[in-house]
Amino acid sequence: MISELDILNSFQHLVEKNDDNLVVVGSGDDAAVIKSQKKDLVHSMDISKEGTHFPENSNANDIAYRSIATALSDLAAMGAYPSFITVGLTSNKTNIKWYEDFTNGLEAIINEYDIKLVGGDITFGDLNICINVFGYPFMKPLLRSNAKPDDLIYITGALGKGRKGLIDWKNNKKSKYIEEFFRPKVRFGLSKYIASFASSCIDISDGLFKDLGAICKLSQVGAILRYEDIPITNDINDLAYGDDYELCFTCGIECEEMLRNKGLKSIGKITEGSNIKLTKNNKDINFKKTGWDSFY
Amino acid sequence: MISELDILNSFQHLVEKNDDNLVVVGSGDDAAVIKSQKKDLVHSMDISKEGTHFPENSNANDIAYRSIATALSDLAAMGAYPSFITVGLTSNKTNIKWYEDFTNGLEAIINEYDIKLVGGDITFGDLNICINVFGYPFMKPLLRSNAKPDDLIYITGALGKGRKGLIDWKNNKKSKYIEEFFRPKVRFGLSKYIASFASSCIDISDGLFKDLGAICKLSQVGAILRYEDIPITNDINDLAYGDDYELCFTCGIECEEMLRNKGLKSIGKITEGSNIKLTKNNKDINFKKTGWDSFY
Repeated sequence: MISELDILNSFQHLVEKNDDNLVVVGSGDDAAVIKSQKKDLVHSMDISKEGTHFPENSNANDIAYRSIATALSDLAAMGAYPSFITVGLTSNKTNIKWYEDFTNGLEAIINEYDIKLVGGDITFGDLNICINVFGYPFMKPLLRSNAKPDDLIYITGALGKGRKGLIDWKNNKKSKYIEEFFRPKVRFGLSKYIASFASSCIDISDGLFKDLGAICKLSQVGAILRYEDIPITNDINDLAYGDDYELCFTCGIECEEMLRNKGLKSIGKITEGSNIKLTKNNKDINFKKTGWDSFY
Repeated sequence: MISELDILNSFQHLVEKNDDNLVVVGSGDDAAVIKSQKKDLVHSMDISKEGTHFPENSNANDIAYRSIATALSDLAAMGAYPSFITVGLTSNKTNIKWYEDFTNGLEAIINEYDIKLVGGDITFGDLNICINVFGYPFMKPLLRSNAKPDDLIYITGALGKGRKGLIDWKNNKKSKYIEEFFRPKVRFGLSKYIASFASSCIDISDGLFKDLGAICKLSQVGAILRYEDIPITNDINDLAYGDDYELCFTCGIECEEMLRNKGLKSIGKITEGSNIKLTKNNKDINFKKTGWDSFY
């Protein structure tokens, strides 16, 4: 039987790497002390559970990477860059190799985004990963509540990649999309780019319709989407599936040319009212028939 | 079947109470934004699991209160006052009353210590509460690593109260100690008092011997404890049991009179070397016979 100490030892070198000026007191004391950055702190928490957020028998390296990436995506959606994270790991795995793999995934993502692991906790039980992510705004925070009628709607990449990746993984099929599901890229680059002009932003974790719906609800507006302009991977259900971690953002029409030069084309626009309409070549598509009204 | 929305609705009023200047962006967006206090941030995370950290069939109100109190205790041990928390709740309860009770416990403790709930996450699964607590130092952080030979050792209250409370609860016995187990008081008052002069501090969550052992290990010192001066509730095993959430701290001999006037009497002193010795009326007690060497 492995002990908590064995597990902690496999993580220790990650916490000890905090030899810069961010972490004043690190591992080994009652609490971590993080140097004030004199900026507002942006925080989000995400719990990832085996069987709910990732399939059973997922690779531990991927579990760590994905759990953190999906949490970091909330910072990108807020127009914030990441600084440090904490990891609360509940696990029933009894093989030290599993913890070493988990640590490798953790190390890969904190190195990729240059963030620090400042603390955490480990306990025994059904696999459950509670990630807290912390960062600071690139400019001002990008809210969900500030979209205005006639603003254009954008997404930062194709929908349905994660969905296809999960299906391919379940079918034991070799596919580039598997990485899209287990190791999604967090859109910090585009978040920084749009931070000065976007009127609202959200990440597409629950599906475009539900997430754009959250922007509409909080901004008290409606929206019209052009199906033919939405990049998808599989079929129309990609618009409702989620697990994409692309950003959906809105901005005034004056940004259209600049964004086109960046390779981004709007997928619709914000309207008065509270409805979200989907059109295909200027004809309404009935949501009921597509099956994704249930998400709204 | 209750929905996630039903559960969130039972918490919502707590997050919406953040109408002061601390929380710039609260519930409903991708992340919370917390106003910079221009002070170093002190952070700790604690996972509490049913069957491990509290018994099955515990009252949901107590579960919430205790999970947060035990996490806050790490801030007190660090010489820090609390400011805000996040709650990651994994629960398999299907009765909305359970969530209302949980919320009441949460509300009681955040009101008691004047702290804000800034965010969290909820998912379905075996009961597991992941609490993140955040605060700021009263003065400088109180570390575990700064005890010096000849420093005196203090604890802020009797040991074994939580232990007795849990036994009494299991035996359905009416007892004032049950509250000590389920709703421990966090020693912020004494933490503030000692912040300017204590050389080291830890909270007694794992038992005096193990926790004082952590101070000794990190300070590279030993200790000698006088059993007759240690306030206990049950028997000698109180020294190793944990669940007390009193503080154990050290300070120079020049503080002795001041602390005596405050009602605090030292229980031993720091020594050179690396051993922890227990004496009773100047005679050594053999740890092996007491059964608590296994904790060290």
